[in-house]
Amino acid sequence: MHILAVTQYTHSQLDQLFTRADELRNYSSPKQRKELAELHKGRQLCSLFYEPSTRTRLSFEAAAVKLGMGVVSTENAREFSSAAKGETIEDTIRVLDAYNFDIIVLRHHETGAAARAAKVSQTPIINAGDGKGEHPTQALLDAYTIYRQFGRLDNLHIVMGGDLANGRTVRSLAQLLSSYPNNRITFVSMPELQIGEDIKDVLKASKTAFQETIDMSSAFKTADIVYWTRLQKERLADPSTLPTDGFVLDPEILTHLPAHAIIMHPLPRVDEISPLTDSDPRAKYFEQAGNGLYVRMALLDQIISKRII
Amino acid sequence: MHILAVTQYTHSQLDQLFTRADELRNYSSPKQRKELAELHKGRQLCSLFYEPSTRTRLSFEAAAVKLGMGVVSTENAREFSSAAKGETIEDTIRVLDAYNFDIIVLRHHETGAAARAAKVSQTPIINAGDGKGEHPTQALLDAYTIYRQFGRLDNLHIVMGGDLANGRTVRSLAQLLSSYPNNRITFVSMPELQIGEDIKDVLKASKTAFQETIDMSSAFKTADIVYWTRLQKERLADPSTLPTDGFVLDPEILTHLPAHAIIMHPLPRVDEISPLTDSDPRAKYFEQAGNGLYVRMALLDQIISKRII
Amino acid sequence: MHILAVTQYTHSQLDQLFTRADELRNYSSPKQRKELAELHKGRQLCSLFYEPSTRTRLSFEAAAVKLGMGVVSTENAREFSSAAKGETIEDTIRVLDAYNFDIIVLRHHETGAAARAAKVSQTPIINAGDGKGEHPTQALLDAYTIYRQFGRLDNLHIVMGGDLANGRTVRSLAQLLSSYPNNRITFVSMPELQIGEDIKDVLKASKTAFQETIDMSSAFKTADIVYWTRLQKERLADPSTLPTDGFVLDPEILTHLPAHAIIMHPLPRVDEISPLTDSDPRAKYFEQAGNGLYVRMALLDQIISKRII
Repeated sequence: MHILAVTQYTHSQLDQLFTRADELRNYSSPKQRKELAELHKGRQLCSLFYEPSTRTRLSFEAAAVKLGMGVVSTENAREFSSAAKGETIEDTIRVLDAYNFDIIVLRHHETGAAARAAKVSQTPIINAGDGKGEHPTQALLDAYTIYRQFGRLDNLHIVMGGDLANGRTVRSLAQLLSSYPNNRITFVSMPELQIGEDIKDVLKASKTAFQETIDMSSAFKTADIVYWTRLQKERLADPSTLPTDGFVLDPEILTHLPAHAIIMHPLPRVDEISPLTDSDPRAKYFEQAGNGLYVRMALLDQIISKRII
Repeated sequence: MHILAVTQYTHSQLDQLFTRADELRNYSSPKQRKELAELHKGRQLCSLFYEPSTRTRLSFEAAAVKLGMGVVSTENAREFSSAAKGETIEDTIRVLDAYNFDIIVLRHHETGAAARAAKVSQTPIINAGDGKGEHPTQALLDAYTIYRQFGRLDNLHIVMGGDLANGRTVRSLAQLLSSYPNNRITFVSMPELQIGEDIKDVLKASKTAFQETIDMSSAFKTADIVYWTRLQKERLADPSTLPTDGFVLDPEILTHLPAHAIIMHPLPRVDEISPLTDSDPRAKYFEQAGNGLYVRMALLDQIISKRII
Repeated sequence: MHILAVTQYTHSQLDQLFTRADELRNYSSPKQRKELAELHKGRQLCSLFYEPSTRTRLSFEAAAVKLGMGVVSTENAREFSSAAKGETIEDTIRVLDAYNFDIIVLRHHETGAAARAAKVSQTPIINAGDGKGEHPTQALLDAYTIYRQFGRLDNLHIVMGGDLANGRTVRSLAQLLSSYPNNRITFVSMPELQIGEDIKDVLKASKTAFQETIDMSSAFKTADIVYWTRLQKERLADPSTLPTDGFVLDPEILTHLPAHAIIMHPLPRVDEISPLTDSDPRAKYFEQAGNGLYVRMALLDQIISKRII
């Protein structure tokens, strides 16, 4: 079973994954952690990163070692490996496949690389981001964060802001939420950085309500979730058209957000969320990152457990 | 016991190594893999790579973790370590020796570095390639691949092709096979990239029959093994002298190869083996790479087991 | 409990640490090493190095795996991580904190980074060097080396030589020894590379006797410890003022050193200690580096054990 895109998950599979993530999170006493470290002893994960992504790599590797797996790792395969000598990704994967790992986590700079790798691999491949393509575990941890907070992935109003045209995470999450009933999405961005027509088509096809605006405060008033990302001013044709709030989340703008709502961000954040926001109880972005650990543990556990059976 | 060159192995030691590799390969059920992960628990391997060689490093580290060893690793010691401040390899090894590892796997850019390291180290050093010098585990996995296929290392006709002047793997394998009776070697290359006189002297001294040719198809007719490597056209004085087949293995030329023969390559391959060849049952180059894992597991196991006794 | 500076240790805490280091050193049989590898199974260490320091990183990681901990590691976080996208060290630490490691070992290029990290981290941070700031485990291993040799850290005459103005290790060690009674320090260096006034003030306040000289041989006559470091000639205004011995330790100058004395160096050494000195039984610099392993094991063990209680 390869994990290439979040769209391959059914709703019931997502439920199972999140339930397992919740279970694994509860192995917290020293005794339970020793038990966990016995669970997949004798299994190995290979981290094959063609471009560095320290956060993603460390969380996959932490997930693996917590489950008792052995880990071997390269964080710069593009420069350091046979790839530099002209080897194709397919050949590299064929060799690693012959090393009999239980899971290969692949990060690649080319869109579609994960699918090409999966085609030649008997070892399960997890796509940890391939160019402008997919990064399914990011979408899974976003969905898991919403699931943990609200106990559901439907009947939600989500406000997505920042660079929606280029942001992989907002595109994936919008798509995923569109598969659940009665969600509503408000896209907050400058006209030239609005969400792509392809995503709008998906929303229309699924009858998911959405609107586009540059007015943060009115969008926030009925929001359950604010999903914020960085808007890079240098991408704007005329930066002077930016509203005075500059799409920055700070205590003032957040007075418009209901108490039950949560604030998410894929991180790293630069200045689009004021540090003053960090102490707001609705700010969940660091917790969200931490959820990545448990989702990845659940994912590795499911892949290996299926192999055992 | 340091592993510096393949020539330090007697035939009987090779037999033991390959037998152990076969045994370790069979630990494949989840239960057996857990057992294996207990075998050398509490032991540690240090990967000290002064130049990156992802394939070699990952396979050593995979071998170690499969045996339950802990691994610490650096893949770019030349740039990142005290070496950049002028520390000698001897001093670096003396420090690592004091860290009480069970095995140090050393890759270095200077010929002879492994022997210099071994001289000051009580910790067993495995040479994982030192400049134009030795790379014994590559030679061992080549020999193991032949052994697995034919059950012997004698009475074989091996055709070696590509850049024989500069190829470390062909030089080592030719030398190793010359120590066994009744082998015959056909070297296929352009005149300026033929095998070195030093290797020819070894073959003559051991009365190993050999010939040199540029005619692939006739060489293949009686071959048991085709060991192919890359011939870099840019090394030729006049590339137009290259035969029309360009020394590329493809389905057409392989019609000349007997059904019982095998095709090997140290990898990475670029275009000297057509992808169409991959589905040929005689193509063993990915299996060969995978054999590197089991040979390295056997090697680590033997070194540590001797230390225990 | 964060470990940010050696000054946070009381004398009794140092005794406990060194006693534990001695105990852990004695787990040397295969059986004992397996036991040790069970001790902190299920615990994880994260190596977060913003600048490479292979020796420090490898010894921390070796310490962790010997205790059965899982390790995840990055050796070039500055270039490879979110830091390159403008993420603050605080945010990076908040994310790692959410990954629920048991210990984060942090190496950073900015002075004060470890304290900033500690402020936002519930996970214990060990400072593995922050710019011109602290590197407490180096000071601990220096002190442990003296403790092992003399059974005490007081009533000693220590000669410190080399670049005392810029050397972090001599500054830390001088400060630490000044907290014990009846130590005497002789600083051997060129006038422009003498120890800083701030350290002299500490020595005066603690009534630790000290003197400055360029005469190695007379300083050595009553020394218990020679702590040598590199004096970079290129830092001197007029290199011709250097004494003829050039502050190089060699067999001739060491005839002035008592038999019971020891020679220490933080390594790497370049040419300020002649290789001929290595066989001198008083030369302890490689042993000293090895002591770093046991001090770090003791440190990790203490941090985790306190967490368990």
